Amino acid sequence: MSKDTPASTLDVIGNHASAPAEGERTADLHVHLLAQAKAARLASTALAQADAETRTRGLAAMAKALAAHAELILAANARDMAQAQTKGISAAMLDRLELTPKRLQGLVEAVQQVADLPDPVGVELARWTPPNGLDISRISQPLGLIAIIYESRPNVTADAAALCLRAGNAAFLRGGSESLHSSRAIIAAIKAGLLEAGLSPNLVQFVDTPDRAAVGYILGGLEGLIDVVVPRGGKSLVARVQEEARVPVIGHLEGLCHTYVHAAADPEKAVNIVFNAKMRRTGVCGATETLLIDKACAPHLLPLIAAKLQAAGCVLRGDDGARGIVPMQVAETADWHTEYLDAILSVRVVSGLDQALEHIALYGTGHTEAIITEDIAAAESFLARVDSAISLHNASTQYADGGEFGFGGEIGIATGRIHARGPVGAAQLTTFRYVVRGQGQIRP
Amino acid sequence: MSKDTPASTLDVIGNHASAPAEGERTADLHVHLLAQAKAARLASTALAQADAETRTRGLAAMAKALAAHAELILAANARDMAQAQTKGISAAMLDRLELTPKRLQGLVEAVQQVADLPDPVGVELARWTPPNGLDISRISQPLGLIAIIYESRPNVTADAAALCLRAGNAAFLRGGSESLHSSRAIIAAIKAGLLEAGLSPNLVQFVDTPDRAAVGYILGGLEGLIDVVVPRGGKSLVARVQEEARVPVIGHLEGLCHTYVHAAADPEKAVNIVFNAKMRRTGVCGATETLLIDKACAPHLLPLIAAKLQAAGCVLRGDDGARGIVPMQVAETADWHTEYLDAILSVRVVSGLDQALEHIALYGTGHTEAIITEDIAAAESFLARVDSAISLHNASTQYADGGEFGFGGEIGIATGRIHARGPVGAAQLTTFRYVVRGQGQIRP
Repeated sequence: MSKDTPASTLDVIGNHASAPAEGERTADLHVHLLAQAKAARLASTALAQADAETRTRGLAAMAKALAAHAELILAANARDMAQAQTKGISAAMLDRLELTPKRLQGLVEAVQQVADLPDPVGVELARWTPPNGLDISRISQPLGLIAIIYESRPNVTADAAALCLRAGNAAFLRGGSESLHSSRAIIAAIKAGLLEAGLSPNLVQFVDTPDRAAVGYILGGLEGLIDVVVPRGGKSLVARVQEEARVPVIGHLEGLCHTYVHAAADPEKAVNIVFNAKMRRTGVCGATETLLIDKACAPHLLPLIAAKLQAAGCVLRGDDGARGIVPMQVAETADWHTEYLDAILSVRVVSGLDQALEHIALYGTGHTEAIITEDIAAAESFLARVDSAISLHNASTQYADGGEFGFGGEIGIATGRIHARGPVGAAQLTTFRYVVRGQGQIRP
Repeated sequence: MSKDTPASTLDVIGNHASAPAEGERTADLHVHLLAQAKAARLASTALAQADAETRTRGLAAMAKALAAHAELILAANARDMAQAQTKGISAAMLDRLELTPKRLQGLVEAVQQVADLPDPVGVELARWTPPNGLDISRISQPLGLIAIIYESRPNVTADAAALCLRAGNAAFLRGGSESLHSSRAIIAAIKAGLLEAGLSPNLVQFVDTPDRAAVGYILGGLEGLIDVVVPRGGKSLVARVQEEARVPVIGHLEGLCHTYVHAAADPEKAVNIVFNAKMRRTGVCGATETLLIDKACAPHLLPLIAAKLQAAGCVLRGDDGARGIVPMQVAETADWHTEYLDAILSVRVVSGLDQALEHIALYGTGHTEAIITEDIAAAESFLARVDSAISLHNASTQYADGGEFGFGGEIGIATGRIHARGPVGAAQLTTFRYVVRGQGQIRP
């Protein structure tokens, strides 16, 4: 247990679902995770049957406790940062790991925002009476126990827990080992908040070990106790999930997003949107990785787009068509398949809408694609024919975000086709069931 | 290829996605299935982008072709029945396998009913504008390629294909080996109908081999071409699916349904509903397998319920409480876990609503549970607290059916918590995506 953990939260962490002592960890890991999952599943049933106000109160208490534990959380994060720096971790990863007082304040506000969201549990989604006279309704309800496997971003620990609880679910969190101290301190605060609100601290379980075997046990579903797994990570995690998962997965996979500048694009919109889509934040899944531009407008428009990107330090890699207009690196086939998450953009000149759609169908990951055009018919054709979770007309792909969609946060952007697609907010972390009220009906 | 297959459909079966000659089957099975899946996925894209009328026309042509091929289908079914009888297959299985002219007529009508259903593709499910000014809509769209693994019920071949196509999906069908000739003849008719309507016969793929390795290849997802697997079968299939599936599963698992007769039950409703829930059809997943009855009403009500069931040949197996009121066999622990699918009912006397819910939570499969009572508060408490896909008040569990729910047929009853739950009709075989219309927005 971290020395940073305050004595007042020791009891909270030291409950039924607490972490074993260091020495026992590997041997007892499965037994321990199973106990955590059982405790969480039990607690989730009570939370699901509680009223909306109870869930709101719990979330508000979580936000308050996170603010109250700020010093402890920042101290724990400093430990993680110091360890990470000695390991020679990349600057981008260090940036994701770091919590500043301002970022922590943002984290607290994000949890409070989730507390303020409408409660998505017990909502009557539909109601009808077929000829047999039965009064049938479809009612939203929590999924149950949601496992989230993520990388070393401490804020995910709080965000994910909050969204799961808003939808009446228990959360089973497994973050990257570099953020272990930060996450542990955040979890301690969350559990203290839950207890304060009269809710079970078992609702949020944290896998308090860097042992990667834990991921395997979670993907195995822990004897059916885990209802769904949400992976948030890079290719190696995704590959492991696809190989090992024995439970449903709401997949947050690669975001190889395209922006297509159509012949009838407004030049100013094109330049600004492409720049924003690539450069606003290069490390997010909604960042554009490939620019497709019509050969009709490329000669005058590509130089404008390229100049703004290159001035900001963006590297361009193009096909022959693009390189004939603007000097840039050569794009190999691998480039069309690469989610750079960096200030690099691959560029291809296409013959028109059909070729742009073909390119997206071949290389896209079903995440987010945009068309820039003033031709409404072309825009509508693109929107109708592109098969991605999100398609946009005249807007930046960086709008692929639950907050921007009005979902009040997200646990990720789902690129699969089952259950949830696109931004996954609290409402997407529910399932439903049918409630049928009869008058003595027996079936003929 | 069956001798029953008419020459006129040879070309249809003998396309890109046709079955290889007998001798090559095992060796080439994966290559062949992959080719079928590729052809189906390609055809599904066209069907997804077609208009509703095109899908309706295709389904109507399928129904017409099935009627036109009636003699061939019945002859093929007679071959299956003859082979099955020599194998000493159970009467229940023979009954499921058999197609009579009347049943075939029902099959044709079922496909026509699916043709008459509202088209669930391209429906605007929601539309809103968040503060960023984007016009966001959520639009339903097909899942893509749906694999259905089922037992020897020839009608499923037509039903499943029709429901998949109604929702713009392609279907990959793998039925039980006993129904191979029947299914092959039904598929030939379906493909002829699709061709007649100007649609690709590749939209419906049939695994034309009894080789069980095919199931493994399908569960592996065939290189990502299969979007979802729908298993319909017994415990061994379900176990295999849970072990091997690398693609999302819409699970049709066991239906261990409970009917709970509450102390305030109307005696006549209780007797009639329990009888119907158990005996209307004992082999369906919505049949009640366990009767729970309050100790307060059991002394006078259980004898009435038992008398009607026993007179119809139903075997009762009870706990001590039940056996103290009506003579019956002893229920072992295994009985509470058993989906009999037969004229057997396990009976337990419970202390009240809480114990009934505890029993259901412990032994139920999350399918369908009913409460019989005139006490509305007790009914609402049961409906709120039972965690099954379907819960009913004062109605037979045999209403667990897509047709009765007004879904115009079903591909099964999903007992999982992801994507679809309860009866899975055409509308549940869709996913959605977000279409965003902007005015040049770049994200701050």
